[in-house]
Amino acid sequence: MSKATSTKKEQPIILITNDDGITAPGIKALTEAVKGLGKIVVVAPDKPQSGMGHAITIGQPLRLHKVTPIVEGVESWSCSGTPVDCVKLSVDKVLHRKPDICLSGVNHGANNSINVIYSGTMSAALEAAIESIPSIGFSLLDYSIEADFTAAKKYVRLIVEQILKSKQLDKHLCLNVNIPKGDEKLIKGVKICHQAYAKYEEKFDERKDPHGKKYFWLTGEFVNFDKSKESDVWALKHNYVSVVPVQFDLTNYELKKKLEKSLNFKA
Amino acid sequence: MSKATSTKKEQPIILITNDDGITAPGIKALTEAVKGLGKIVVVAPDKPQSGMGHAITIGQPLRLHKVTPIVEGVESWSCSGTPVDCVKLSVDKVLHRKPDICLSGVNHGANNSINVIYSGTMSAALEAAIESIPSIGFSLLDYSIEADFTAAKKYVRLIVEQILKSKQLDKHLCLNVNIPKGDEKLIKGVKICHQAYAKYEEKFDERKDPHGKKYFWLTGEFVNFDKSKESDVWALKHNYVSVVPVQFDLTNYELKKKLEKSLNFKA
Repeated sequence: MSKATSTKKEQPIILITNDDGITAPGIKALTEAVKGLGKIVVVAPDKPQSGMGHAITIGQPLRLHKVTPIVEGVESWSCSGTPVDCVKLSVDKVLHRKPDICLSGVNHGANNSINVIYSGTMSAALEAAIESIPSIGFSLLDYSIEADFTAAKKYVRLIVEQILKSKQLDKHLCLNVNIPKGDEKLIKGVKICHQAYAKYEEKFDERKDPHGKKYFWLTGEFVNFDKSKESDVWALKHNYVSVVPVQFDLTNYELKKKLEKSLNFKA
Repeated sequence: MSKATSTKKEQPIILITNDDGITAPGIKALTEAVKGLGKIVVVAPDKPQSGMGHAITIGQPLRLHKVTPIVEGVESWSCSGTPVDCVKLSVDKVLHRKPDICLSGVNHGANNSINVIYSGTMSAALEAAIESIPSIGFSLLDYSIEADFTAAKKYVRLIVEQILKSKQLDKHLCLNVNIPKGDEKLIKGVKICHQAYAKYEEKFDERKDPHGKKYFWLTGEFVNFDKSKESDVWALKHNYVSVVPVQFDLTNYELKKKLEKSLNFKA
């Protein structure tokens, strides 16, 4: 699928996607933030895809449309699929090669701790990493469509520049970056963290439709069980930008050892 | 959300779900296989949800309907959401407590190696593990609707019995079990494995609709880079049932250490 990799003198190819859709302010902010760092191509869903996790589209075909550049001079495409579809399709049908880096976001809302698993933003980034494309997902802790991306843009550029320069650039590198809400001046810096052990305590809101039939809305309370100062929840609470390196090998090696000792699966 | 946990003398509560939908032969086979091991409740999607990954339904409400038992005497519900929605909704609105174990499948088709990330079957299991419900996802390496579940049923029962009895039962335990296709007698046994490093080399099938506009179908070739005899791909190829313990902490701790040493994110 990958036709070539860029030589050092060529500009890096930067693929940008998201899960809030091509019209979201967050993807415009991300594109503006990295302008000049390489040749940028935007391929993003044509509608919001929050909470899509690592969904792919199997049962129906995908559409891809070239659209008005979301930032002047930046080739932009909308895709009818999920964030993961966008990454897969753009490599094969838009770029015709692997990009040098894939950026996803800036998500409107937090993707720290367990959110990484539900997040379309992070799933797009993880898909790139699976395909040997270093990737970074960015999220701002502000759901508002009017969110102020000033701080986000500053830290996006800082982090992308560092990663592009770094000799440690692993082809499977995937970073989950979350940026606190609020005034840029209050941010204390960047902290490399682990994914906090936290989850949602679900409570479905039960309602009746006009015909008397029940339906349910997903709601829930975020609960953090992780007291460590190394966690992303701690970092964000203390006004640091959190950076969690993410992997796609889900094997629980510790449990594997335990099971090998304790279980007897003889038929 | 959890109202109680069962005492040792009570029957365990077994929640069963899948991603192929409530009408799939695989979930009937799974339910039959564990009959008698506890009080079983089935809550599964009302339509196929393969490849949905860890998607959740945020933008629209969910419906839940009691249906004809898929196996005699087993309470059965269909849900309009994703496999992950089924787990969340059944805990809050059907069981009104956490089940003692959650079983997902039997999936029609493999979920070994990287498939764990795309799989609705495994995402349902992982969701349960996040919610402190031990879980097992089962998949048969046969896509056919006419697949023979004889071997699958034997190993499902063997593994579920062992896990229910085991003192090692971790509340976050999540197992990804894949069963080879074909005659039960040819299966050599059960092997505890790691997730093989393998991926899909995508190639989209490009077509034109009757109006002359392009559309794309996702296709791809599965490529295994993992030569280890400890991998699930190896085990299945050599006719073992593969068992991979799965975790939801995606932190790449090795890369975290490297980044702490090598990067300078000072603004």
